[in-house]
Amino acid sequence: MTFQRLSILGVGLLGGSVGLAARRLSKSCQITGYGHRQESLDAALKLGAIDRASTNPAEAVKDAELVILCTPIGAFGEMLRAIGSALPTGAVVTDVGSTKRSVCQLAKELLPREIPFVGSHPMAGSEKRGVEFAREDLFRGALCITTATAGIDGAVVRRVESFWQELGMRVTRLTPEDHDRMLADVSHLPHAVAAALVAMQSDMTLPMAGKGFLDSTRIAGGDGGLWRDIFLDNSDNLRDSIRKFRIHLDRLESMLDPKKTEELKQWLNAAAQKRRGFGESAGSE
Amino acid sequence: MTFQRLSILGVGLLGGSVGLAARRLSKSCQITGYGHRQESLDAALKLGAIDRASTNPAEAVKDAELVILCTPIGAFGEMLRAIGSALPTGAVVTDVGSTKRSVCQLAKELLPREIPFVGSHPMAGSEKRGVEFAREDLFRGALCITTATAGIDGAVVRRVESFWQELGMRVTRLTPEDHDRMLADVSHLPHAVAAALVAMQSDMTLPMAGKGFLDSTRIAGGDGGLWRDIFLDNSDNLRDSIRKFRIHLDRLESMLDPKKTEELKQWLNAAAQKRRGFGESAGSE
Repeated sequence: MTFQRLSILGVGLLGGSVGLAARRLSKSCQITGYGHRQESLDAALKLGAIDRASTNPAEAVKDAELVILCTPIGAFGEMLRAIGSALPTGAVVTDVGSTKRSVCQLAKELLPREIPFVGSHPMAGSEKRGVEFAREDLFRGALCITTATAGIDGAVVRRVESFWQELGMRVTRLTPEDHDRMLADVSHLPHAVAAALVAMQSDMTLPMAGKGFLDSTRIAGGDGGLWRDIFLDNSDNLRDSIRKFRIHLDRLESMLDPKKTEELKQWLNAAAQKRRGFGESAGSE
Repeated sequence: MTFQRLSILGVGLLGGSVGLAARRLSKSCQITGYGHRQESLDAALKLGAIDRASTNPAEAVKDAELVILCTPIGAFGEMLRAIGSALPTGAVVTDVGSTKRSVCQLAKELLPREIPFVGSHPMAGSEKRGVEFAREDLFRGALCITTATAGIDGAVVRRVESFWQELGMRVTRLTPEDHDRMLADVSHLPHAVAAALVAMQSDMTLPMAGKGFLDSTRIAGGDGGLWRDIFLDNSDNLRDSIRKFRIHLDRLESMLDPKKTEELKQWLNAAAQKRRGFGESAGSE
């Protein structure tokens, strides 16, 4: 494995799954976990996701080769402040956050100049939360987006990418700006829309829901605090995505007209073909 | 089984699945299929979904106890016109359409007075189309909404409900008006929204899609012609659902504001709780 001493800051679903996947790859690697609750650390130790635990982030990173921020994105600033002076020479820092501009900016401001930060967004997860849902195969086949920023050595970025590839992921590199703009369209907006679809249902309509409704709103079951952080962190792009979405919904509504029957069919078939063409090959998010 | 001689008009995914499920229940029942393409009828015969076939709807219903309209809803008028004078005394007609006001009205206009029509909406299906995707367990555990209209004998409605229950469905009865209004919210709107989510994606963003996007847009892969018929047939209610949905999306957008961080979290958590509370227990749609 590219890195032999990992520090996972935040041992929930994602952090726990990183630990389990790394342990499967290497019996000898050292995996230290930080959590603010001893209970989560105990659960992670018991599951074998980590083999050392600390409730002190500085203590948890003191001999790390790779530090992976796995807390909610709202805690990234606090984490980076806490570890800055404790990181050993040669350590690399990455994360698993769903937005990338803010964490890259925070890393630039808060980490020592000699410590490289490579943003990562492994697009795996579920609406579940907590280390008890961690799985060693959570990342397999899914996409990890890495973000390289000015001044970061390309060789370091490639080492981080190798780490995610070892965990079974496909890797694509984007700028933090492109990442946040594209993910607003394809991930943050769908969550917003699913939540609005759920919010508008009544006690009368929900019992009539079938598989279609359940599939289309599954993501809305995700933790409100986590998604609040993502939405606010990426609010400019999300507003823009909502604006684009409204244009398409307005277009559809304008075709609810018996005079536009052929046009509506073609529009729906174009969406169906686009969706089917994409298929089910992507991994979990 | 409540009915021993079935006529299935339209042997696609739904019609074929009705046939397979009925055959599983009763080796001796007679299942006649109508289709306008001999090819589909041959496939349905080969699969055992029907045991007699005709490309003439009047011929297909001439000794039926229960006739089930399984064509796209756009063809219901043509079917009812074709079978009206061929139906034997005592026959009951039902359907599997996703809207209920129009078919109940058509049945009232086009069927002989002594032939009862009971609208049915078995909420099972998939984005797939064609008898080759038919499954004998398609209906098991899913909800069937029946619609009783003025002048229809309650005992006849209960016989049709028994038929769906024998196929493993839960049954709820609504008026056609309530059905169409509620299904616009919980089924037709989610499809419209999913199609708009797909339509707005670019060649750049689609490759970044994860499981969340795939789940939330799976229904958009459905046949454009079928959904066009549903949308146009229920356009008044769908417009109203879109209007309600916009209010909730606007509400969400208004909370993309650092001053409303707690409010946004609570709103998202309320949606998450509502969605999780509903769970995965409903059947397929």
